[in-house]
Amino acid sequence: MINKLIENIKKTGAPIVVGLDPTLKLIPDHVLEKNYKEYGANLEGVSNAIFEYNKTIVDSVYDLIPAVKPQIAMYETFGIPGLIAFDKTVKYCKSKGLVVIGDIKRGDIGSTSTAYALGHLGKVTIEGKDFRGFEEDFATVNPYLGSDGVKPFIDVCNKCDKGIFVLVKTSNPSSGEFQDKSIGDKTLYEEVADTVAAWGETSMDGDYSNVGAVVGATYPEMGIELRRRMPKSYILVPGYGAQGGKGSDLKGFFNEDGLGAIVNSSRGIIAAYKNEKYASFGEEGFADAARQATIDMIKDITEAIA
Amino acid sequence: MINKLIENIKKTGAPIVVGLDPTLKLIPDHVLEKNYKEYGANLEGVSNAIFEYNKTIVDSVYDLIPAVKPQIAMYETFGIPGLIAFDKTVKYCKSKGLVVIGDIKRGDIGSTSTAYALGHLGKVTIEGKDFRGFEEDFATVNPYLGSDGVKPFIDVCNKCDKGIFVLVKTSNPSSGEFQDKSIGDKTLYEEVADTVAAWGETSMDGDYSNVGAVVGATYPEMGIELRRRMPKSYILVPGYGAQGGKGSDLKGFFNEDGLGAIVNSSRGIIAAYKNEKYASFGEEGFADAARQATIDMIKDITEAIA
Repeated sequence: MINKLIENIKKTGAPIVVGLDPTLKLIPDHVLEKNYKEYGANLEGVSNAIFEYNKTIVDSVYDLIPAVKPQIAMYETFGIPGLIAFDKTVKYCKSKGLVVIGDIKRGDIGSTSTAYALGHLGKVTIEGKDFRGFEEDFATVNPYLGSDGVKPFIDVCNKCDKGIFVLVKTSNPSSGEFQDKSIGDKTLYEEVADTVAAWGETSMDGDYSNVGAVVGATYPEMGIELRRRMPKSYILVPGYGAQGGKGSDLKGFFNEDGLGAIVNSSRGIIAAYKNEKYASFGEEGFADAARQATIDMIKDITEAIA
Repeated sequence: MINKLIENIKKTGAPIVVGLDPTLKLIPDHVLEKNYKEYGANLEGVSNAIFEYNKTIVDSVYDLIPAVKPQIAMYETFGIPGLIAFDKTVKYCKSKGLVVIGDIKRGDIGSTSTAYALGHLGKVTIEGKDFRGFEEDFATVNPYLGSDGVKPFIDVCNKCDKGIFVLVKTSNPSSGEFQDKSIGDKTLYEEVADTVAAWGETSMDGDYSNVGAVVGATYPEMGIELRRRMPKSYILVPGYGAQGGKGSDLKGFFNEDGLGAIVNSSRGIIAAYKNEKYASFGEEGFADAARQATIDMIKDITEAIA
């Protein structure tokens, strides 16, 4: 699956991913009101508003980008109706040719991780017929439980041609609390990175592995070191934009051929209309604002890594 | 909320929790067939079979136990229909007076953890009216992202009288791969435990904290040390039974008053009918087998900790 992502990146010339992380504060009022009127000011109304918001943005940017990354928490917070919007969003994005990275950060003991992996990347078999729970192409995975918790995902990647990004060094301010602790002559996140590199060998797909890593844009020096430690793992880089990461911080996450990393922006794109820079688009023009912000982000990053 | 759990434990004299972790292999054929006939041999059929299976077991054991722990992965693997069964199970168990521990192992950057916390333990507000996504009383939380990822859950615990169990030392064979690494003069899991103890101080509810910990029954010596390090945190102990933990291993997880820990069994109870010991109940008697296995487990554990 990493090969499909790389093909999409080469085709668009855009090593970026748009984070589809809708919240009630980000969805324009007119979209909320329309859906509240049609479906009720309730979880169903929100679910439909989320999907309309996502679909309008995707219709506006899909030709520019290789992939999207819906953060499932923003849907799960609205219960079943929210997850229906997640499922519809995943399917719609795939119908537009986009690679879908489910930002689910799951991870559990073996048999439980298998259930997550089959539900998000694989399939379940009922009376001899296959069904898919959710239909992402990639999922993010939490490594705290060790190999038992990650290998079931890799098995499904190998069986169904899918991929994962394992949390190595996350973008949040307190990520160092445990991840930066020294264990012997390296940090915990370096130990996790070395393990990701080893896991990666078991799921190669061309020059890169289906087992990638998450490393926050907010820690650029660590990005350089981690690029070196996981030479065959793609790095998914959150934290650009709203969280403070800048294009100039990102060169070290990439290889010399311009591959090896994909940078996520969520609020910076989907709520660009709230940014002074794109205010002229107005709230009604949120999708056009998202398109312009996408074009600007691609320019910022491709220039920085040139 | 920990006080409500303790009240339930005292009332039943049973420091145990039944893990409602249904899989197609565990649900008796006659339950599957009936629901496939009524709803189709598809995700909807499975969803209804899961709920019937859970409900029948809960009806058979609810008077013996304080709490249940549905593992959401076993539902999520069947997509939206599976999660509908999860939601119905949570609500049904609460209607029977049981405390519900959602084994969801979520954890993300701050704003995202807030979304999970509100969705599972709190509420969302739409046009001035409150709605609940899912309705658990407790959730399990993964600490890899540090305080940013856990505090939003604690905030919701404090606002809505709920609780969490943070992963400290998990029950799986590879849990030591990262958790047992030495950082200075302690291990990573001890460092996480000390942090859980500090987090716990910020959400006290009587003698114990709403911030508990997960420590596997499969590591009894570590249980003794962790009981000491987190004196006010309840310990949720998975790994008893099918994963290899025995009653005699569990004494060290408890305080002298018999409180301080709650031991989970999933397959050992819900699929007791598949165990030679309870084979005489037959497949049709799966709920009676579950009741007998629950009685036996309570005896095993209360004797061991006496």
